[in-house]
Amino acid sequence: MKIYDFTQAPNPRRVRVFLAEKGITVPYEQVNIAAGDNRKPEFLKKNPMGGLPVLELDDGTFIAESVAICRYFEELHPEPNLMGKDAKEKAVIEMWNRRMEFEVLAMTAGAFRNTSEFFKGRIPQSPDYGEICKNAAIKRLEWLDGELANRKFVAGDRFTIADITALIGIDFGRVTGIRIQDGQKNLARWHQEVSSRPSAKA
Amino acid sequence: MKIYDFTQAPNPRRVRVFLAEKGITVPYEQVNIAAGDNRKPEFLKKNPMGGLPVLELDDGTFIAESVAICRYFEELHPEPNLMGKDAKEKAVIEMWNRRMEFEVLAMTAGAFRNTSEFFKGRIPQSPDYGEICKNAAIKRLEWLDGELANRKFVAGDRFTIADITALIGIDFGRVTGIRIQDGQKNLARWHQEVSSRPSAKA
Repeated sequence: MKIYDFTQAPNPRRVRVFLAEKGITVPYEQVNIAAGDNRKPEFLKKNPMGGLPVLELDDGTFIAESVAICRYFEELHPEPNLMGKDAKEKAVIEMWNRRMEFEVLAMTAGAFRNTSEFFKGRIPQSPDYGEICKNAAIKRLEWLDGELANRKFVAGDRFTIADITALIGIDFGRVTGIRIQDGQKNLARWHQEVSSRPSAKA
Repeated sequence: MKIYDFTQAPNPRRVRVFLAEKGITVPYEQVNIAAGDNRKPEFLKKNPMGGLPVLELDDGTFIAESVAICRYFEELHPEPNLMGKDAKEKAVIEMWNRRMEFEVLAMTAGAFRNTSEFFKGRIPQSPDYGEICKNAAIKRLEWLDGELANRKFVAGDRFTIADITALIGIDFGRVTGIRIQDGQKNLARWHQEVSSRPSAKA
């Protein structure tokens, strides 16, 4: 078993933090996105979408998509639990994880992908859409600050996969100037707390 | 228990088809997106994102996000199974469901959202990005046609949630002229098969 990883990209970090929280160690193999190694035929056989991370199982199965990889390990090692213990909690955590993915991470990533020099010529860019993403992310952080007035973590009173996605989405906003604002005390308190967990450095 | 629904939108259809496959009946209450009822304060208390569908449980919990709603019912009624039976199958189906969501449905929806008169003034639009989405969707259908040469359904040899997402993503492409092409025999065969299931009319 191994995980194809790239330490500078946000999605691989999601799986590294998740596994660190679980106390699971898996060997990593670096695939250099900056050098375009994830778009080469050899890698596209592993994941035709070209995305990282990818988990390779010992039977040769490739599992792409960060949340699918997390699900695999959650099913095999349910404790410490990060994705819910019963039907209702699983659904609530998945709802919050998806909100953090689509409303925060996809927006900070969309701002970067559509405006950065790095992606010029690699993907079709729309600076207009990059701006829409940036504005959406700023609005969503304001909203999330309000949500965190009422509870300790994103999906409730305990740390879950939704906190990992939110942390990485917000941290990735730095490259396009999307930051927690001075008045956002709840979000700042939460960010300080999740950033200080040992897993945040994974 | 009830589900807030809007019959003309793609995401609510995902849950209706899923429940039809399971043989589960839940009362629906219509929320008219065309009239903007999903942006009114009363609905935003149920889902601050304004999206449909939303599941309301008897204890007053609101669960938004189609896949989170499907997960809730899958956990309570695992058969017929649509999201996987063990760690590996769950992960593989989730990978494929996410691919169908991000590479197909999000692209046909992105093409519509960013170019349609319907969304003008409702959301910030980027026609450039709409065009990028349309081109991406067309490319992804070509790729999916190739994938379906080797197996009966999107995630393997049986019908799963990934087929539901793909069906609805592709069907939603019609409004922006994204269609299965004449040469795409595998995709056409698959589309015919999943469209003829009784659940497709849900």
